[in-house]
Amino acid sequence: MKKNYQALLNKIYHEIQPIVGQGQVADYIPVLAQVNPNKFGMAITTVDGEEFSVGNANEHFSIQSISKVFTLTMAMEMMGDQLWKRVYREPSGNRFNSLVQLEHENGIPRNPFINAGALIITDAITTTKGQTLGRMLQFVRELAANKEINYNLEVAHSEKEHGHRNAAMAHFLKSFDNLEHLAEDVLDVYFTQCSLEMSCIDLARAFLFLGGHGKSIFVDRPIIPARQAKRINALMLTCGLYDAVGDFAYRVGLPGKSGVGGGIVAVLPGELVVSVWSPALDACGNSLAGIKALELFTTYAENSIF
Amino acid sequence: MKKNYQALLNKIYHEIQPIVGQGQVADYIPVLAQVNPNKFGMAITTVDGEEFSVGNANEHFSIQSISKVFTLTMAMEMMGDQLWKRVYREPSGNRFNSLVQLEHENGIPRNPFINAGALIITDAITTTKGQTLGRMLQFVRELAANKEINYNLEVAHSEKEHGHRNAAMAHFLKSFDNLEHLAEDVLDVYFTQCSLEMSCIDLARAFLFLGGHGKSIFVDRPIIPARQAKRINALMLTCGLYDAVGDFAYRVGLPGKSGVGGGIVAVLPGELVVSVWSPALDACGNSLAGIKALELFTTYAENSIF
Amino acid sequence: MKKNYQALLNKIYHEIQPIVGQGQVADYIPVLAQVNPNKFGMAITTVDGEEFSVGNANEHFSIQSISKVFTLTMAMEMMGDQLWKRVYREPSGNRFNSLVQLEHENGIPRNPFINAGALIITDAITTTKGQTLGRMLQFVRELAANKEINYNLEVAHSEKEHGHRNAAMAHFLKSFDNLEHLAEDVLDVYFTQCSLEMSCIDLARAFLFLGGHGKSIFVDRPIIPARQAKRINALMLTCGLYDAVGDFAYRVGLPGKSGVGGGIVAVLPGELVVSVWSPALDACGNSLAGIKALELFTTYAENSIF
Amino acid sequence: MKKNYQALLNKIYHEIQPIVGQGQVADYIPVLAQVNPNKFGMAITTVDGEEFSVGNANEHFSIQSISKVFTLTMAMEMMGDQLWKRVYREPSGNRFNSLVQLEHENGIPRNPFINAGALIITDAITTTKGQTLGRMLQFVRELAANKEINYNLEVAHSEKEHGHRNAAMAHFLKSFDNLEHLAEDVLDVYFTQCSLEMSCIDLARAFLFLGGHGKSIFVDRPIIPARQAKRINALMLTCGLYDAVGDFAYRVGLPGKSGVGGGIVAVLPGELVVSVWSPALDACGNSLAGIKALELFTTYAENSIF
Repeated sequence: MKKNYQALLNKIYHEIQPIVGQGQVADYIPVLAQVNPNKFGMAITTVDGEEFSVGNANEHFSIQSISKVFTLTMAMEMMGDQLWKRVYREPSGNRFNSLVQLEHENGIPRNPFINAGALIITDAITTTKGQTLGRMLQFVRELAANKEINYNLEVAHSEKEHGHRNAAMAHFLKSFDNLEHLAEDVLDVYFTQCSLEMSCIDLARAFLFLGGHGKSIFVDRPIIPARQAKRINALMLTCGLYDAVGDFAYRVGLPGKSGVGGGIVAVLPGELVVSVWSPALDACGNSLAGIKALELFTTYAENSIF
Repeated sequence: MKKNYQALLNKIYHEIQPIVGQGQVADYIPVLAQVNPNKFGMAITTVDGEEFSVGNANEHFSIQSISKVFTLTMAMEMMGDQLWKRVYREPSGNRFNSLVQLEHENGIPRNPFINAGALIITDAITTTKGQTLGRMLQFVRELAANKEINYNLEVAHSEKEHGHRNAAMAHFLKSFDNLEHLAEDVLDVYFTQCSLEMSCIDLARAFLFLGGHGKSIFVDRPIIPARQAKRINALMLTCGLYDAVGDFAYRVGLPGKSGVGGGIVAVLPGELVVSVWSPALDACGNSLAGIKALELFTTYAENSIF
Repeated sequence: MKKNYQALLNKIYHEIQPIVGQGQVADYIPVLAQVNPNKFGMAITTVDGEEFSVGNANEHFSIQSISKVFTLTMAMEMMGDQLWKRVYREPSGNRFNSLVQLEHENGIPRNPFINAGALIITDAITTTKGQTLGRMLQFVRELAANKEINYNLEVAHSEKEHGHRNAAMAHFLKSFDNLEHLAEDVLDVYFTQCSLEMSCIDLARAFLFLGGHGKSIFVDRPIIPARQAKRINALMLTCGLYDAVGDFAYRVGLPGKSGVGGGIVAVLPGELVVSVWSPALDACGNSLAGIKALELFTTYAENSIF
Repeated sequence: MKKNYQALLNKIYHEIQPIVGQGQVADYIPVLAQVNPNKFGMAITTVDGEEFSVGNANEHFSIQSISKVFTLTMAMEMMGDQLWKRVYREPSGNRFNSLVQLEHENGIPRNPFINAGALIITDAITTTKGQTLGRMLQFVRELAANKEINYNLEVAHSEKEHGHRNAAMAHFLKSFDNLEHLAEDVLDVYFTQCSLEMSCIDLARAFLFLGGHGKSIFVDRPIIPARQAKRINALMLTCGLYDAVGDFAYRVGLPGKSGVGGGIVAVLPGELVVSVWSPALDACGNSLAGIKALELFTTYAENSIF
């Protein structure tokens, strides 16, 4: 049955309006705090390449932690199973920026999506700062088929200036000998990677290889083996939404990854990718309207992985 | 494409032999410690009612924590969303019998599948001990279409005698005012429920309502709404394998629930249920050969939820 | 220089009035919640047997955790250094009733004065319930030279009924195999021991052996060797006031032991014992006016162990 | 009774020989790892200015954490009670370099002697790096009446290079807004302060103001009020020996401060200061022979604060 996804997006857009703006825009750096909380965009890309969107789906926003999926993909390609000596694959049951578990587990982060784990991933793919950021940008532009995508260096700089907690984490990892490069250098790459700006439409395209068993209709080459796509989806489902993965699986039922910029991307393997953006966050740091919109999507579409 | 599941089970049975018996049989109570570690059984039931099995798939074993799925289903029917005031739905990131998180989170267990959460669920469905255990048995027999299924009171009694940690947990929950009945009474029901003995074939049938959007071909009435089946699957995926949910999702990619008796049941929504039993456990308390067998299953069948 | 202790007590009594009643009377059991928060008594007994008192120093109150010093003294006599295999001697840095550290440290409580440690001590001195409580009462009556001292069985019973947290702790200790007797039996003795009722005057006498290097002018026989008295004083200083030992050492500068009944006893080795009672507690569970009164005492007397 | 302290030191020196060298020299930086583990020195200075010593009491060693007493003294003078808004005064019940408690307690370290607390103290007294280190050196030289005392910049540099854990801690404190200066700047001063080199004789003199109610016979001016000396002694007793304060109080019974260089200084208020040095450490990071020597001292001298 071919779904009428455009009608569905319109319906969700209409229903979601009352709660758009509820919650709290990330304010830990000034440049993010200025974002208009009333934005809402949503986009769908099917594995066949059909695209649907609604609202502010074409506006760029700071993808922040969503970038961790791109770096993880790169790291899994570069390192294979060696990677899992440096980071576990289990949900943390703790805040994304907690150092407690890291201490109890001797510097091996719980998974690649909490901040400590993401620093490991960034460390793993880093050669020089410039080269690494270059490769990363090239990869994301290729996936999204959009050469305009770029870092926002103002955001990156501001993150660095206020990123004491991440700095603590990087030095802590270094103290456990689980960081190859200097803490400062890894942080530099990390803060820049998080400053990537993309739109819902960009993201829905860029994640299509995870909906398409490793392939995307927008990219000529196979991106990763089907087995790896399956695994990344599994990691997103169990670890992709900070300390709200259980709630997200329960309500939405799709693998997904969120960022404090208010973006969420979710994958229905074999069918489509759906992305959403609304900057006001709930108590767990996920887009409040974004999660609700995705819940409406799987409810109306009667389609989830479960 | 119709899969030849019998051939697949035979193939897995052959390949798994070298690791059957590796690991450690649960020995915290004498009666479980005596189980032969070299047992291995596996069964598949499709939503159409086709059944396949191999090895010791017809032998009864102690289902232990797998029983938590039956009690959760009963509790969700009885209480609806009220249930989630007493227990969260997030993976714990801790051992299944840890009291640490319970203290930090004021007596609200992380999810219904860790022991503390399961005690809440048992408390929620308890009226009198006899009546509750009666209803439970009736429900499981109906689901498995097998009137021979029963509790093993010797196991239940032995659990009670050695169950100091669970006793600590029940009293701890009571101290946070999150237990309605007396700790002793809830423990009585809980230890008995865990002593249920079923075979792989029983379990594959009994979970079919979770593979069939709430319905089972073996039961005349609809068991639960499709929405609830989806949610229970989501809970199993994010919380069903103790502190190895991430690894199980990564390697197997199906919602599942394990028990220290060595059983695991996994669900491929819309298609089938697959169960496995092999008593020797890995370091996380899950059947070592069982997890490997399920990994082979999704790899060869090229089918998982991801 | 002979101090005029009576004048000093009078001065303190006068100055303390404005804060007597500030704080919160323990209300975890009804019978304690009824105590008049405006009571204040204080008593001094010197090693020479001189006695001074003021206010409600002659009124009985529930000594609660102060009883742990008596049971520890008995256990050290009975078991010697063997005792320290079952309990550490370090401050906990946690709430007195926390189970977190107990789990992290495999069932060995941090010290004999937090609840878990006190349960170990009670377990260690227990033979039969009746015999044990008999010996304990005899010991306390001898120390205080007062045959009227007794348990309050109503309090003991009420503690038991509401003591779910302590029950959790006892079962938790049992699960680590660090309890010889049944959890229920140890709890029975423990709740009764805590229900002992004594006055400030009783307590100042009863602790005199700790001020007198193991001897008390009120008891014909030497109670314990000087070395043991020194050690118990050290334990009180580092562990005697729940999670406020540092603050108490800083402000008062004496070894002491408090109870949720509002009593505190402090020792100036070689010179005297000073006891105080005022039922309203601070956030750490220590008598608010009691601590202030002791601070005034060491300030005016210009005398502390530091 | 005038004790014959020289004879006592000789006796201890003789008895301690069999265990000198047992344990493990600190090896987290190369320059400390080279220290000869068989060194042993001990010194006593009485409040009257009499000095006694034995063994390698005149050799310089790295005082490390003992320096925290000097900086705390300076900070208490500069800030008074304001200081206690930024750091608690309670024993930690955790390793000296743990970040767990810091996270649970929102960036307020447990006490001024664990590393996190010491960084706060250093931050509090810092103006410029040069000026701060200058004042510190002047203060220590004055107290020890020895102008030869100096920092070891090679040690400081090496600490900095390997001090990832301390760096993590400083950035963590900064993330809680509990650090005024840049993390890097505070670490610079901190690592240099820890590199101070002194002998047992120097230390026994330098701590005399804590034995002398704020005054030292070697210094013309009163150093601090008696009340402050009492408080610093209380802090040393409850927090001065990492996670072994209870054991030290139990066995030795004096306020003291240890360092990973193998030094310990202990105070008997009103009478004397005793210092000891032996580089091989026990599992808690305290000088193994040093603690034993101090235990012998208080046992033979029959004198402790308890």
